Amino acid sequence: MVVGVISSLRELGMALRSRALSPVEHVAEVLQRLAADTHNAVVTLDVEGASAQASVLADELARGQWRGPLHGVAVGVKDLFDVAGLPTRAGSDVLRDAPPAGADAPVVARLRKAGAIVVAKLHTHEFAYGPTGDVAATGPARNPHDPTRITGGSSSGSAAAVAAGHLPLALGTDTGASVRTPAALCGVVGLKPAFGRLPTDGVFPLSETCDHVGLLTADVHSASVAWDVLSRPGGIGGGIQPPGVAGVRIGIPVGDYWQAADPEITAAVAAAVERLRAVGAHVVEVRAPMIDELAATYGPIVGAEAYATHAVWLSERPQDYQAVTRDRLGPMAGQPAREYVEALRTMRRLVPAFREAMGEVDVLVLPTTRLRASPIGVPTVEICGVGVPVRPALLGLTLPFNLTGWPALSVPAPLPAGELPIGIQIVGVRAEERGVLRVAAALDRS
Amino acid sequence: MVVGVISSLRELGMALRSRALSPVEHVAEVLQRLAADTHNAVVTLDVEGASAQASVLADELARGQWRGPLHGVAVGVKDLFDVAGLPTRAGSDVLRDAPPAGADAPVVARLRKAGAIVVAKLHTHEFAYGPTGDVAATGPARNPHDPTRITGGSSSGSAAAVAAGHLPLALGTDTGASVRTPAALCGVVGLKPAFGRLPTDGVFPLSETCDHVGLLTADVHSASVAWDVLSRPGGIGGGIQPPGVAGVRIGIPVGDYWQAADPEITAAVAAAVERLRAVGAHVVEVRAPMIDELAATYGPIVGAEAYATHAVWLSERPQDYQAVTRDRLGPMAGQPAREYVEALRTMRRLVPAFREAMGEVDVLVLPTTRLRASPIGVPTVEICGVGVPVRPALLGLTLPFNLTGWPALSVPAPLPAGELPIGIQIVGVRAEERGVLRVAAALDRS
Repeated sequence: MVVGVISSLRELGMALRSRALSPVEHVAEVLQRLAADTHNAVVTLDVEGASAQASVLADELARGQWRGPLHGVAVGVKDLFDVAGLPTRAGSDVLRDAPPAGADAPVVARLRKAGAIVVAKLHTHEFAYGPTGDVAATGPARNPHDPTRITGGSSSGSAAAVAAGHLPLALGTDTGASVRTPAALCGVVGLKPAFGRLPTDGVFPLSETCDHVGLLTADVHSASVAWDVLSRPGGIGGGIQPPGVAGVRIGIPVGDYWQAADPEITAAVAAAVERLRAVGAHVVEVRAPMIDELAATYGPIVGAEAYATHAVWLSERPQDYQAVTRDRLGPMAGQPAREYVEALRTMRRLVPAFREAMGEVDVLVLPTTRLRASPIGVPTVEICGVGVPVRPALLGLTLPFNLTGWPALSVPAPLPAGELPIGIQIVGVRAEERGVLRVAAALDRS
Repeated sequence: MVVGVISSLRELGMALRSRALSPVEHVAEVLQRLAADTHNAVVTLDVEGASAQASVLADELARGQWRGPLHGVAVGVKDLFDVAGLPTRAGSDVLRDAPPAGADAPVVARLRKAGAIVVAKLHTHEFAYGPTGDVAATGPARNPHDPTRITGGSSSGSAAAVAAGHLPLALGTDTGASVRTPAALCGVVGLKPAFGRLPTDGVFPLSETCDHVGLLTADVHSASVAWDVLSRPGGIGGGIQPPGVAGVRIGIPVGDYWQAADPEITAAVAAAVERLRAVGAHVVEVRAPMIDELAATYGPIVGAEAYATHAVWLSERPQDYQAVTRDRLGPMAGQPAREYVEALRTMRRLVPAFREAMGEVDVLVLPTTRLRASPIGVPTVEICGVGVPVRPALLGLTLPFNLTGWPALSVPAPLPAGELPIGIQIVGVRAEERGVLRVAAALDRS
């Protein structure tokens, strides 16, 4: 959709390995595009470090050494991850003067070891505490499909940079929406692996109960390649060849909770389900009567954990927070421990019940968000004459799978020219990440 | 020390298996002793159920069927465990009218399947929220070594019934002290396995972070037999033959935190360490500079979790709580979520640091409690001219191992006639339960 650097990790990897493209040229092009970015996606560019690393990796290739499919590939990371030598500012003036990180977060170190070149730290919603991407010390991120609209968040810069064609791969985090929602709103692929599958060490925390590390790419095959490398540290990786979805059992959640607000989204998901059915998937409706009670645990859990992290700064330097963030965190000061304990107990009780209600399905297919990208700074939009609050519409369909910890991915629906992107969410119930990627690949090709 | 039923599971098991003693006779004798108990150890006797089960198990033996070393053995369970057909009252008038439990707690079901006969529900400190055993709807439990003194708690009835010679085996729970401390004060063996090793389902909860199911017996070999059965559900079990402690690395925690208040306890632990050294153990001193900070997380964690369980009852029926319990739980209403979240984070950070500080030791050897059994209802005792608050003295040395989740056991020190019992605590650092039992067995024999 956008003419940028080679965005397919398959094509890019082949070009680099065959030395048709040098890591030095590739990184120079990426740096040039990022420097000229108009979506406010970039926080820090590491021109010197990235260029030096590109030379090293080019020399390795010249000597016949190949680390795998990410060898020489430029990547960006959300400015929530520690990258040695660069500050982690988390989108906040609270960390305006953060010193350079002493070491890479383990997941960043894995990428580097696999030959990836970290070129930039990318825009994040302040402290990752919001699904819109328009609240940050450096101003709002802008959607490549319409710069007056939000990217979604909190991995706003990661989604925008991939959607703009600047980068083939970016790391993000997802506590309730933050990889999948910006992927959906920007028209790229966002994968949130199962809870705990990628280490969150060295990543500024939002909620130890719900934080996941994830990744964003332009297409499903690229996500498979990146997942293969990240999930097998030390291994060479190689991507998967999706074998189709014949016989896969797909659950479609029905009930009020799961409704999109935008009828175009409902139609796009229905079309995606029909495409999957046409290539052999079994489709069944599933009901989760406990979903409202389960989803209601999210706010008290994440709020308590976020507040505990920020309490000292909130009292000592409230002016360094964006007003929206301060106004959301502040009231958590009065939250009783009982509320948090009960929310955790309810979650632990209902997740197995939810799983049970899903029966034998392998994956769920549903919208990623209830809305498409809304105008920057607008808290409520009107759809079919009804006011729809943006924040819950961007969180409601994704956060259940942070509570369950199941793997989940957003893949773009086919997009008529000039339209705003729509994300189809694939959630692994019995399926693990590779199974989710397989179903997404069927949609990507069909 | 007390002439009771056969208290050794080895001897009892041999007598039952050889049919020298019938389960019917054994259970009748136990029921008679429990009915005549003067230590307030018994809450509910199941004369009918136990007698019927004894007949069934006797018939099995007559047919040559033998379920293993607990076949036909009478056991008691703390009145915190669900036993099908009997109410679970947890030592409280709040549960005065509790209906009969619909099913056995899984750990009770394991005992039954192994041929044990549940004869009684035993006294517990109210809702297991205290280490003294003198706060309960049915009044204080009384120490068989001196009925004016506490048993320790919260598994007060389990310790008293075993110490009085009424029962060879009783189940207890241990959230901060509650198996080990009453075992120490009553002169029996109490084993708290590692966190999660025995299921807590069907057991009235105190704290999901710290609750452990454990067991009490008269000697270490009996604890080994019972552990063998409980830890291998479905297996036959058979006890272990302790192979000695030559070469075992024993750590002695040094520093103010670890001091007993009673010099007799210090001397008894030193003598135990010398006995272990004499039979080949390597003894090293270890230091845990983080212990005060780690131990300080216990109150906020257990308090928050206990309060969340009791909040509704506390507001609706405060008069049904014992005043001591109400006065401890009540103030937790104002506990902020932040304090609880921070306590959990501190615990998760310091447990690995504590482990690291222990180096290569297999087990720790230290006092179980800082005091011996104190007079019932007395909150502070005087030792060498100094007032010592009883509650922390009975919790301080045991609760660190509920936070770490390591296996820990209390074994009685050799006891001059007429003296009050002293418990030696063995904690597994690298050792698992069997390793802890092996060290304890060396003390039991030496």
